[in-house]
Amino acid sequence: MLRPDGQLQEEKVFKDPVHRYIHVRDELIWELIGTREFQRLRRIRQLGTTYLTFHGAEHTRFNHSLGVYEIMRRMVENLEKKMTWEKDERLVCLAAALLHDVGHGPFSHSFEKVFQTDHEEWTSRIIMGDTEVNKVLRRMGEDFPARVADVIGKTYENKLIVSLISSQIDADRMDYLLRDAFYTGVSYGQFDMERILRVMRPQEDQAVFKHSGMHAVEDYIMSRYQMYWQVYFHPVTRSAEVILSKILHRAKELLADGYEFQQTPHHFQSLFESTMTLEEYIRLDEYIIFYYFQAWELENDPILSDLCRRFMDRHLFKYVECDPSEQMIIWPELQELFRKIGVDPEYYLVIDSSSDLPYDFYRPGEKDERMPIHLLMPNGSLRELSRESDIVESISGKKRTDHKLYFPMDLLLDQQEHGEEKRRILTLLHQQEG
Amino acid sequence: MLRPDGQLQEEKVFKDPVHRYIHVRDELIWELIGTREFQRLRRIRQLGTTYLTFHGAEHTRFNHSLGVYEIMRRMVENLEKKMTWEKDERLVCLAAALLHDVGHGPFSHSFEKVFQTDHEEWTSRIIMGDTEVNKVLRRMGEDFPARVADVIGKTYENKLIVSLISSQIDADRMDYLLRDAFYTGVSYGQFDMERILRVMRPQEDQAVFKHSGMHAVEDYIMSRYQMYWQVYFHPVTRSAEVILSKILHRAKELLADGYEFQQTPHHFQSLFESTMTLEEYIRLDEYIIFYYFQAWELENDPILSDLCRRFMDRHLFKYVECDPSEQMIIWPELQELFRKIGVDPEYYLVIDSSSDLPYDFYRPGEKDERMPIHLLMPNGSLRELSRESDIVESISGKKRTDHKLYFPMDLLLDQQEHGEEKRRILTLLHQQEG
Amino acid sequence: MLRPDGQLQEEKVFKDPVHRYIHVRDELIWELIGTREFQRLRRIRQLGTTYLTFHGAEHTRFNHSLGVYEIMRRMVENLEKKMTWEKDERLVCLAAALLHDVGHGPFSHSFEKVFQTDHEEWTSRIIMGDTEVNKVLRRMGEDFPARVADVIGKTYENKLIVSLISSQIDADRMDYLLRDAFYTGVSYGQFDMERILRVMRPQEDQAVFKHSGMHAVEDYIMSRYQMYWQVYFHPVTRSAEVILSKILHRAKELLADGYEFQQTPHHFQSLFESTMTLEEYIRLDEYIIFYYFQAWELENDPILSDLCRRFMDRHLFKYVECDPSEQMIIWPELQELFRKIGVDPEYYLVIDSSSDLPYDFYRPGEKDERMPIHLLMPNGSLRELSRESDIVESISGKKRTDHKLYFPMDLLLDQQEHGEEKRRILTLLHQQEG
Amino acid sequence: MLRPDGQLQEEKVFKDPVHRYIHVRDELIWELIGTREFQRLRRIRQLGTTYLTFHGAEHTRFNHSLGVYEIMRRMVENLEKKMTWEKDERLVCLAAALLHDVGHGPFSHSFEKVFQTDHEEWTSRIIMGDTEVNKVLRRMGEDFPARVADVIGKTYENKLIVSLISSQIDADRMDYLLRDAFYTGVSYGQFDMERILRVMRPQEDQAVFKHSGMHAVEDYIMSRYQMYWQVYFHPVTRSAEVILSKILHRAKELLADGYEFQQTPHHFQSLFESTMTLEEYIRLDEYIIFYYFQAWELENDPILSDLCRRFMDRHLFKYVECDPSEQMIIWPELQELFRKIGVDPEYYLVIDSSSDLPYDFYRPGEKDERMPIHLLMPNGSLRELSRESDIVESISGKKRTDHKLYFPMDLLLDQQEHGEEKRRILTLLHQQEG
Repeated sequence: MLRPDGQLQEEKVFKDPVHRYIHVRDELIWELIGTREFQRLRRIRQLGTTYLTFHGAEHTRFNHSLGVYEIMRRMVENLEKKMTWEKDERLVCLAAALLHDVGHGPFSHSFEKVFQTDHEEWTSRIIMGDTEVNKVLRRMGEDFPARVADVIGKTYENKLIVSLISSQIDADRMDYLLRDAFYTGVSYGQFDMERILRVMRPQEDQAVFKHSGMHAVEDYIMSRYQMYWQVYFHPVTRSAEVILSKILHRAKELLADGYEFQQTPHHFQSLFESTMTLEEYIRLDEYIIFYYFQAWELENDPILSDLCRRFMDRHLFKYVECDPSEQMIIWPELQELFRKIGVDPEYYLVIDSSSDLPYDFYRPGEKDERMPIHLLMPNGSLRELSRESDIVESISGKKRTDHKLYFPMDLLLDQQEHGEEKRRILTLLHQQEG
Repeated sequence: MLRPDGQLQEEKVFKDPVHRYIHVRDELIWELIGTREFQRLRRIRQLGTTYLTFHGAEHTRFNHSLGVYEIMRRMVENLEKKMTWEKDERLVCLAAALLHDVGHGPFSHSFEKVFQTDHEEWTSRIIMGDTEVNKVLRRMGEDFPARVADVIGKTYENKLIVSLISSQIDADRMDYLLRDAFYTGVSYGQFDMERILRVMRPQEDQAVFKHSGMHAVEDYIMSRYQMYWQVYFHPVTRSAEVILSKILHRAKELLADGYEFQQTPHHFQSLFESTMTLEEYIRLDEYIIFYYFQAWELENDPILSDLCRRFMDRHLFKYVECDPSEQMIIWPELQELFRKIGVDPEYYLVIDSSSDLPYDFYRPGEKDERMPIHLLMPNGSLRELSRESDIVESISGKKRTDHKLYFPMDLLLDQQEHGEEKRRILTLLHQQEG
Repeated sequence: MLRPDGQLQEEKVFKDPVHRYIHVRDELIWELIGTREFQRLRRIRQLGTTYLTFHGAEHTRFNHSLGVYEIMRRMVENLEKKMTWEKDERLVCLAAALLHDVGHGPFSHSFEKVFQTDHEEWTSRIIMGDTEVNKVLRRMGEDFPARVADVIGKTYENKLIVSLISSQIDADRMDYLLRDAFYTGVSYGQFDMERILRVMRPQEDQAVFKHSGMHAVEDYIMSRYQMYWQVYFHPVTRSAEVILSKILHRAKELLADGYEFQQTPHHFQSLFESTMTLEEYIRLDEYIIFYYFQAWELENDPILSDLCRRFMDRHLFKYVECDPSEQMIIWPELQELFRKIGVDPEYYLVIDSSSDLPYDFYRPGEKDERMPIHLLMPNGSLRELSRESDIVESISGKKRTDHKLYFPMDLLLDQQEHGEEKRRILTLLHQQEG
Repeated sequence: MLRPDGQLQEEKVFKDPVHRYIHVRDELIWELIGTREFQRLRRIRQLGTTYLTFHGAEHTRFNHSLGVYEIMRRMVENLEKKMTWEKDERLVCLAAALLHDVGHGPFSHSFEKVFQTDHEEWTSRIIMGDTEVNKVLRRMGEDFPARVADVIGKTYENKLIVSLISSQIDADRMDYLLRDAFYTGVSYGQFDMERILRVMRPQEDQAVFKHSGMHAVEDYIMSRYQMYWQVYFHPVTRSAEVILSKILHRAKELLADGYEFQQTPHHFQSLFESTMTLEEYIRLDEYIIFYYFQAWELENDPILSDLCRRFMDRHLFKYVECDPSEQMIIWPELQELFRKIGVDPEYYLVIDSSSDLPYDFYRPGEKDERMPIHLLMPNGSLRELSRESDIVESISGKKRTDHKLYFPMDLLLDQQEHGEEKRRILTLLHQQEG
């Protein structure tokens, strides 16, 4: 069915609000997009609970995945002017870009924490397992799926290709910054991608950037920094995430305790038990989750039903800043007080910490070491970005962490009895805010 | 809980990618947004199946409803410079703008056709019935909910207010053109809203537009025309809608026939039987629908499961243009041929017609008569738009209809037997395309 | 000095606010941009007196010429996928696009009317004469300048190429609509150029457009229509043009009458006398004109100095709509009245008519016949645009003309004497407005 | 002629590509815009020689001045919700915003360096002197012009008002960043102005910013930083400025030496002699300058004519980075070598240094001390920006300086003789580049 050169008779395009058009010239890509596993990404939002803070951010991972593919397509087009690929490497690149997120499940962030799953592992299973995606990939050769999986898993031999999709400045990050900025409506995510692509140069095992384009790279790093604190770590988004996690925890606990559900979580019971099959995983999308959450609003367990109602109707927890060292001291008392007024602190008193390392150079020996961004100087040498840029230097390697304490202020305010405990709680919370 | 003047202590804003910010100054509006029925709009997409054609169009009616409110807020601000309102009329306007779509269900277009329901009726029931929305509205006075419902139902005494939300140029249309253009990424929907708002003048029972702003109004009418044919009636979107309708039909039929579902449609059984309660309706969102559709992929009924798989995995029907007069002749033969090759024409051979009347002046006596757009001439007289604008005149009152015949090309191509019937079918379809 | 393949070692780019980047890969283009005659376009505004109405529109023909080149570059890139060129045709195209306006002088519109010059003739002379442009072009071959001039003059053998730069939908029009919309800030000029380029197909002697892209072409025609009436024919812009023409007329008359200028118009005296040399023409830019106009504010001739002051300080004439048939009757009386109150009607009472034919199909035998836009139908046949598009049909071949009568309202209002004449003038003007 | 309340009967608007519309409600503002001195700003470009680098940047100070006014209008509208003004303070603000640049001359940067003039002083003279601007202002009261001049001169009593137009984050800077980014087409200048205006709070003698808006302020500071290095200090722009300065120097020198000009610089002779009158200054615009430069291309003095041709035809100097300490050593030899090959180093070997201090907090005792930006903390206290923001802290108080050595590479390359000197020069220049 594939033509000898694997090219489509006529280029196909998708209208895209961020890149204007997504261009597809290869039959391989066209068919991957049509697979059931890829179409499933339409049912998983790109930004989890962020839509509860920024109502515009209702876009899905399908949307983003096409965008990453398109940026990669342009990168490859540019790089091919400066180098020649081994056979098929171009298609490996494009397929990896398209599929890099194919293993994401609903609200991955929360699910992974509660169930110790890993979307990267599922991505690999979808690519290598008995799936439509695998069938399409295999037509390019028996080892083709493995090559694509290796690029995404960062173990691929050609490190240049790996760096295009997983480095501190790659097709994935570039797309999500632009796209998330577009959909949320914040202006921070803008940077001059076209210029960055123009100054990109292939160098053995990575892409580097001509020195003359440094300011565009700087601007990209700043955009990333701003998007993290303005959008990704927005405290309201995290409040919804806290509740979501607690729902999952509660369901897991109830199941373990033999609670009789009116709506048993068939679809993710196996996840609780770590026996989920690939087929089951593929069926698990956000629509399933919301179906259960809506059903559970009517469960007898007051915690489960309250948390589900909060999530569905956006009655979120309030928060105060908190200082973890100080919090250690008041924590036991605060928990005790919550218990006294009949509110289970395990579910209703939660510390959430977010931290971001906007850019880092190479620190040998440390785990999670990052490949630095290199500039190509006029004399042909390479220089690590933060040594040239004051601004990048200023945030380089500096992890910023933010701790917040979440709790249902409405429950406190509605309390008619326990006046004294309530006052004491509010005082302690107020101290936290410091 | 409401302050005497009903104003929030500090204005609240929502970041919006279309209008930059949505400004909320009234406690009434703030609380309406927080109701369960309004939050539910986050689970109903604005453009139904359009996301299968334009992947960017994943936005919901929540998103749009805030936008309509914001445009109305600006309209009211402008009009208040030229006139004075009766008490509370301003809040009636704003609430009606916010709530005008609150009764929409999942994929309303298809559901309404299959089940003879009417989202406008549900809107009225949500506003008047035992809901959080009603509770919040009633705080403004016992008759306040009815006033809001009347504006949306176009029966409100103050026709000027009705025209701001339901006329050929109103807050609803202005927002959806801009918003749908933004999310799909097409450029056609753009027009100069700020100028239109500036030239708007209140005149007894309608808003009219200063003659100097005619070109901005023309441009809006053209945008509307283009959006209909480029986006709203896109044949791929309609293909998905055709399948969606057929799924609902099939489920209804199976239920009537006593078919034993593995996943019985509890959530919309009452809809099939026209006994749905308000509470049931409010629970019915797109997440529920997708849950069933995914479950039904595994049903034994081959038609139901095939159609559901098609919808979920975007294996849509192909189409040919068709001429209804010609089609009358070949129709029986075509149906017969489909039956012969074992494909039920009731579900797999579908004519879909779309038609749009981009603008119309007043034609007394005709049903669906429309209030024309009036220009305010320099000498103070009013003049109907199409008498001044050649372009609008050219499309005025001209209904354009498009007929397409949808069918599963893949099933035809996969057919191994029935070679002759297949050839004959393809010939007939080809004729249609004329 | 040119490399064998004529390609630059590294592509050069210009940052452009409309097309993001202008890409230059050919040494020929790079060197043409650097010529004195092309750099001169920086001193001639794209939209003449429009900056007096839309303050943002201060951009020059240099700006626009680069844009036309860039669109042509993209057109050529697309067309080359569908066809092969004769040798050098590609560079002929690009050079013609870049140079198509190189013969424009300051305020061409007004100058050409007053002095019966023709910028197209000057373009040809700059390309063929003793200029830097000619020197650069000649390096490509002795006949190369003539080929470029022929494309611009529409006499080139390859009519396809001619149509890319001079037809009802060409690189020139596409750039100026987008660019003028951008700089004025009006939203009307937007259309989806990328889509138009994608659906363009070469067909013997013209470029045609795939039927599926018809709506994008429609939208372009509408943009053109709106820009004409909203921007290009704006009555305030025309008021400034009227004054400009009258200044030139007056200077010409004074020179003929032997008036002794304090600042003699050395730079365009030869233009008055139709003996201007190429070298003189190249020196004639808007800076020269403004220099004289400012100097002439101090001339003794009251008409010349008043008109110059009006132009420089933007004290423009007011206008009323006028009906030419009616005007014939009152015209003599109006002129007489102006004379009576001491205001010379030759300079202070001016009718200006603008007319636009937004689109036309082919009308054999008529002068100024236009090549129609053709759609390429699915069956391979061609069809003229207005036969497929209702909207285009509605404006097709319909010339719209607008007449306005310009006069200095301030002079009338300041009049202390001649009360009766003044009242009669205002009455007559008011009738005109009808 | 002014109505009692000074409001226009109907609001007037200017279409603006940056702010969409400029709104004028006060007759005072409307009349100021119409003055000869304000209209003159149409003939002075906002960014001097930048159009030679970014061809889109052809906008004038007229364009920018309207923008500053519009931002101020919005600031005032916001602030008026939080405070009450003394009588007329609002109009003083608006007039000062509109007129803050009215004293700028052509290429102010270069002119001020060569002639020791000061545009701020001319601004004051235009406001206080015998001008149309002064006449219009005086209608508001005898002391009104002085109040406006004091705001611009930063000596006005109400320091809050001064800070709105002259501080590290003011209406002037906000407009030019947005506007210059728009016209050049670079994306760096974007920031969320609407948010900044929303979080602005009046506090005694300055405007402060709510802590929740810190990231928007950070983003503004970063935009400013990027615009300086990407646009304002672009080395090509500075090359043109170097040539411009040298033209002025040469003309001054020739005049002092009694050289006989064919085109004597009547218009700025008095500037050379520091005797320029207000009337002469007002006539001095960029059109005059270009007139002379074009005329001087034909002067006998080879340096003057060469430099003018370079400027007009954009044959600029090339540059190398240079290290001032190192340069001290090679400087004498380099100058000597230039002289040997017959190129006057005074005009053809120029060091240009640019430096920017992107943000600074208050450093008592230092000259040029700057008012810091203050954040309004949740507890009501104020905190200087760089103490809260890591990024701002990283660039705070750090002056970055860039030195470049400019010279005519073409002259060196064209040299046929002096081969040895030429090689030596190139070697020395190459060293500089380090």
